[in-house]
Amino acid sequence: MSPIIINDPFDPRIAAYRDIRERDLTRRNGQFVAEGEVVLNILTSTASLCRPISVLIDSRRFEGLQPVLQALDADVPVYAASQPVLDAIAGFHLHRGILALGAKPGPINAGSFLSALTDRSTVVVACGIGNHDNMGGIFRSAAAFGADGVILDERCCDPFYRKAIRVSVGAVLRTPIVAMGAAEQIVDRLLHQGVGVVAMTPSAEEPLRAARRNGPTAIVLGSEGPGLDPSVIARCRAVSIPMSGGFDSLNVATAGAIALHHFTRA
Amino acid sequence: MSPIIINDPFDPRIAAYRDIRERDLTRRNGQFVAEGEVVLNILTSTASLCRPISVLIDSRRFEGLQPVLQALDADVPVYAASQPVLDAIAGFHLHRGILALGAKPGPINAGSFLSALTDRSTVVVACGIGNHDNMGGIFRSAAAFGADGVILDERCCDPFYRKAIRVSVGAVLRTPIVAMGAAEQIVDRLLHQGVGVVAMTPSAEEPLRAARRNGPTAIVLGSEGPGLDPSVIARCRAVSIPMSGGFDSLNVATAGAIALHHFTRA
Repeated sequence: MSPIIINDPFDPRIAAYRDIRERDLTRRNGQFVAEGEVVLNILTSTASLCRPISVLIDSRRFEGLQPVLQALDADVPVYAASQPVLDAIAGFHLHRGILALGAKPGPINAGSFLSALTDRSTVVVACGIGNHDNMGGIFRSAAAFGADGVILDERCCDPFYRKAIRVSVGAVLRTPIVAMGAAEQIVDRLLHQGVGVVAMTPSAEEPLRAARRNGPTAIVLGSEGPGLDPSVIARCRAVSIPMSGGFDSLNVATAGAIALHHFTRA
Repeated sequence: MSPIIINDPFDPRIAAYRDIRERDLTRRNGQFVAEGEVVLNILTSTASLCRPISVLIDSRRFEGLQPVLQALDADVPVYAASQPVLDAIAGFHLHRGILALGAKPGPINAGSFLSALTDRSTVVVACGIGNHDNMGGIFRSAAAFGADGVILDERCCDPFYRKAIRVSVGAVLRTPIVAMGAAEQIVDRLLHQGVGVVAMTPSAEEPLRAARRNGPTAIVLGSEGPGLDPSVIARCRAVSIPMSGGFDSLNVATAGAIALHHFTRA
């Protein structure tokens, strides 16, 4: 296979990659841009839930990327450009030299997702996570511990933002994502389905290490700073990670990982 | 108290704050620049191991910061500038509007540090951690779980880099830091001192959840990607965090937090 050489940053074939920093936050067409070899590997793997649309790379990387590029369907174009053209397209210095345009998976039906859960299932519920690093970190840990999916409330940022995908090491592309509205309604629906719903909150009396799961389990995480709303916590089994007296501050993605490790023990 | 008004970005009194992005990586005089209110709060608290040298803020924040500024010794100058002057000094748009110049703590003697450890002590050993986000995350968790200190091998980046301090939520400023040379020598010295040394590595057979501590405990973390050298792992009790089949990738700071949670249980 040969790449399609791009010499003009305004070539319409690579328009979706132009000024990606600006577009990351406004893309509304079900597409996303991912970067880097690790993420491209996941996008082209059978585990991916997303469809690659095209790839844009630094020409010098074409040879080295053959193994992953050959995993692409024949109808997925591979564009190659010199580093200066690539930087002009992206709008900043793209030192990784690898971008891919993908199509997000179609929406997952909440009812189908919930009724497929088993006693061994673990899901993460992200509430009001607006920081892309934290969102990516939550997905990375969800994938590492084999969570069945991540449920997002209506106040979460888009996990398909380029930085969130990168921090997740591509986990966003292979994890079932269920958008389910307001946090209180999500919890009510999980409870109705017989899921044990655990809210991670520093204010809880029950320490995580004493908590045992009983059937399908959901781990509810709130944003750093404000944390989970009291109305959400009141509906859940509230669990805390005890911390050292003088410094009760744990990153939300880290707290989620500790809870996942705890509840997914063999 | 009144702030010292700065109108000239080249005023020699605020020279240490100039072009901080450039200087972060080259500062060699035992000083550091920290940013943000949370970090300033820690720098001025009794828990801080560092000495504030001066503060530079957006003039509009002076009133709101009175509680924390009043905790400063009288001989610590507070400089105030308009946002444009502040941005011109820093070399980029400083949206937080709060900078502080501090003096790092003096070096901690390794022998004294090790001989003060008790059976309940837990320390983190960071080996080859070159990413400032990961470094900051390790310190944040070390503080949250009350670790006695963080030992750095000679290949680690500087935890007093501005971004590492910020990600640590100021934990870098209040955590004993011991620089101790090569990783192998650090492990040998810990073992000689009777410390149980646990290497976190995905290759280990023993799962973390089965591991019990016995006396003072050190948790050894390697960089993402290459991980710990086999020569380091061979000296330690190797422990793994079992992960889901298809995605064996956990952030190093996250793995450290899971290990700290496990080994510091009440």
